Amino acid sequence: MRIDLNSDLGESYGRYTLGMDGEVLRHITSANIACGFHAGDPLVMENTIKAAVENGVSIGAHPGFPDLNGFGRRKMFMSPQELRACILYQVGALKSMVEACGGSLNHVKPHGSMYNMAAKDYEMALVIAKAVKDIDDSLILVGLAGSMLVKAANDEGLPSAGEAFADRAYDNDGFLIPRSVDGSVIHDENVVVDRVVSMIKKGSIKSFYGKEIKLEAETICIHGDTKEALIFAERLRKELSAKGIRIQPLGK
Amino acid sequence: MRIDLNSDLGESYGRYTLGMDGEVLRHITSANIACGFHAGDPLVMENTIKAAVENGVSIGAHPGFPDLNGFGRRKMFMSPQELRACILYQVGALKSMVEACGGSLNHVKPHGSMYNMAAKDYEMALVIAKAVKDIDDSLILVGLAGSMLVKAANDEGLPSAGEAFADRAYDNDGFLIPRSVDGSVIHDENVVVDRVVSMIKKGSIKSFYGKEIKLEAETICIHGDTKEALIFAERLRKELSAKGIRIQPLGK
Amino acid sequence: MRIDLNSDLGESYGRYTLGMDGEVLRHITSANIACGFHAGDPLVMENTIKAAVENGVSIGAHPGFPDLNGFGRRKMFMSPQELRACILYQVGALKSMVEACGGSLNHVKPHGSMYNMAAKDYEMALVIAKAVKDIDDSLILVGLAGSMLVKAANDEGLPSAGEAFADRAYDNDGFLIPRSVDGSVIHDENVVVDRVVSMIKKGSIKSFYGKEIKLEAETICIHGDTKEALIFAERLRKELSAKGIRIQPLGK
Amino acid sequence: MRIDLNSDLGESYGRYTLGMDGEVLRHITSANIACGFHAGDPLVMENTIKAAVENGVSIGAHPGFPDLNGFGRRKMFMSPQELRACILYQVGALKSMVEACGGSLNHVKPHGSMYNMAAKDYEMALVIAKAVKDIDDSLILVGLAGSMLVKAANDEGLPSAGEAFADRAYDNDGFLIPRSVDGSVIHDENVVVDRVVSMIKKGSIKSFYGKEIKLEAETICIHGDTKEALIFAERLRKELSAKGIRIQPLGK
Repeated sequence: MRIDLNSDLGESYGRYTLGMDGEVLRHITSANIACGFHAGDPLVMENTIKAAVENGVSIGAHPGFPDLNGFGRRKMFMSPQELRACILYQVGALKSMVEACGGSLNHVKPHGSMYNMAAKDYEMALVIAKAVKDIDDSLILVGLAGSMLVKAANDEGLPSAGEAFADRAYDNDGFLIPRSVDGSVIHDENVVVDRVVSMIKKGSIKSFYGKEIKLEAETICIHGDTKEALIFAERLRKELSAKGIRIQPLGK
Repeated sequence: MRIDLNSDLGESYGRYTLGMDGEVLRHITSANIACGFHAGDPLVMENTIKAAVENGVSIGAHPGFPDLNGFGRRKMFMSPQELRACILYQVGALKSMVEACGGSLNHVKPHGSMYNMAAKDYEMALVIAKAVKDIDDSLILVGLAGSMLVKAANDEGLPSAGEAFADRAYDNDGFLIPRSVDGSVIHDENVVVDRVVSMIKKGSIKSFYGKEIKLEAETICIHGDTKEALIFAERLRKELSAKGIRIQPLGK
Repeated sequence: MRIDLNSDLGESYGRYTLGMDGEVLRHITSANIACGFHAGDPLVMENTIKAAVENGVSIGAHPGFPDLNGFGRRKMFMSPQELRACILYQVGALKSMVEACGGSLNHVKPHGSMYNMAAKDYEMALVIAKAVKDIDDSLILVGLAGSMLVKAANDEGLPSAGEAFADRAYDNDGFLIPRSVDGSVIHDENVVVDRVVSMIKKGSIKSFYGKEIKLEAETICIHGDTKEALIFAERLRKELSAKGIRIQPLGK
Repeated sequence: MRIDLNSDLGESYGRYTLGMDGEVLRHITSANIACGFHAGDPLVMENTIKAAVENGVSIGAHPGFPDLNGFGRRKMFMSPQELRACILYQVGALKSMVEACGGSLNHVKPHGSMYNMAAKDYEMALVIAKAVKDIDDSLILVGLAGSMLVKAANDEGLPSAGEAFADRAYDNDGFLIPRSVDGSVIHDENVVVDRVVSMIKKGSIKSFYGKEIKLEAETICIHGDTKEALIFAERLRKELSAKGIRIQPLGK
């Protein structure tokens, strides 16, 4: 029994600082580093890569839509050709930078709207999976557990990993209940820990509507923007270890 | 006796088309492809790479300042750390894309103001040379013949190549006479051909002021934006071949 | 009987030139000038404004989504607050620049995907209409004839104008048949002229499916990117004048 | 005896928050609002304008170089035509937005490198002054006290105001000693208050080198990014009022 803990990092930009990257790196096994389109800039990227390498944290590319102002959270519709090139460019830039810093790229996790749209749109997911494969067919494509992105990676013969959100309620189809819905965010830490253990041990979880649904996740998303999130991450690590679950990077 | 003919390509952007890339590729041995900061976008880059690969033309990265509106021609002052990251990012993105398309990156030639500033500023040139070396120490750094950029590459143990401009007058220090000066652009094709042959055979050329100055160039810049430039490129190829000068890519 | 002839202008950007603005200005009565988000930059805007003023052509703002790479043609989803501010900013910038050049802003016509989405989405159209009204309640909002954008302007008490595309086929609901459909673009100039005259005289036109549909347009879009379009614009002007239809700017 | 207290506001961008605008507004009489080029976006601008209007604070445009990544602090060289259009666009956008929110634009203060370069470069300062004048010749142009920007405004017949930095040392020519120099930033609050009073009452101040130099300032810059700066701002207000100096907006 094993699990990876991942977090989105390197989302600062020029004069603007976002996230508590320095502290988050001590709690996670995988860092998804923004690639300059929805967040991040070249210098932020290089500094974040160096910090991840120093902390022995696995590095992934975190490509997003070319929309800094919307932080990659606005839905955008690119042509398949544009989307493909946009993935090649961002993942390629980060990969070369990681290698220039003496590390190696381990995975790719799309960001924001690109992640959410590709979770439901198989054609789009396939474009992403093929682009990642063309960069390096040993890269692990991370997507919402059970989503089209994971399916597309599998269909392309690309390694994949399903991601779960420990503190979020799921509907019966395995999609996240929107944050705007009452009860969609779980605040009781004990419940969150139990859910993560259930995911890992049984590969299932109780949905928002009370149904036991399949949820096979290889990685759990750790939020890195509040002090509370970090304290919780620390607790989660301890409790999982105590239950004999190894915390380790994807594919290692 | 050999020479490389290079041209700046892939400078279109989205709905905007620039240059006659399709035709230029038939006349050159090296393509410097814009990397998305001063020109180019991911899709333009991928399409340009594919066309270069199909034409058997060597591929180089053509990084510039992050200034699409100024086309990388405005002087900008970045910190050494920013400049380094900006080179890693652009060259890295192009390198990965070239490899995803089945090719390999051969050289790097900075664009516009970055090229001109680094020609005179050794510290800046060194930052660029080190960044290119950290990406891949077999990449050839192309700079103005005799400039600080070539010197910095040599000092770093990075392969280098000096570039000459066949139709431009030089001052006694080997710098280009600004286009605004009368007589700085040479329109007589016979003169231009003779100057190129002089550069290659003797490693020297007559300056604007009549002095014979050293000019050792491994590559000649071919403009790709007018019909006339292309007709001239064709003629230049023929005359050089007739004089026993081989036209071939840098380092091959 | 009267009609306005409008064209999208000022879509160049930095080193990139688009459109034949200088010639188009001689054929139209209204210029929709890009505002720097999907195309155009401040210098292009100022130069285009000056040229429009010199030619006595009415000036409108042509705001688009913040997506230069996609030329404002990609669907994007902004919040109502973001969309409102995005309209205020673009229309406001152009309005001030027009006034600094001694002219006055006459109308606003959204561009590309913003235009198309607002044609069908009343809530979005209302956000645009309210923002335009808050800038200046005498501005004329131009939208697809019969669309939600025109309706929203009317509901807000803002002057409006319906736009028609002379060379395009319409479906029975008054929406354009996509260009990808065979027969959706009308190439026979005589047919195009007859359709325009029918729109103006009868306020109706024959749909793609043969049904006579209402189409009340105050302005006709003139393409400005090909020599043929301009030759046709000239012919259209002559034939309309000959039929007693006055060609004049909106609201004048 | 009177003085204005100004602060740079609205420098957040999309997901990125900068500065303590809400609190700063309670301490100042003039807000310089970023215009979307070096910082700020349309929604941030509208929200900042509304907050300034609610707090009865005078509003100024704070245009900068088109360099979000460098926060307008990198030197950039634009042509006079580009610079002019860049000022017209930014000031024009903010002016229209302020008016749409029921306020009126009072002044213009360039940002960062644009401010510093124009302080020493009269030609550049003149381009800025003329552009501001063409937008509205009653706008007050704010520049470093005694600088070329103030001189250019005066020469153009545009209202001007000199700005002073209360906690910074000056050289004998009235320019700021760089922050990197030991002793260039004054941390003793009593000294800072005394210096401000000296500026206002005597129009002079002691330079870094001990010489009494002329420093006629109509406005003092208040930093808004630390708690300490705000506490100091409050103290400054009290002490100035106690000494009979009225704190009020420029030109009112």
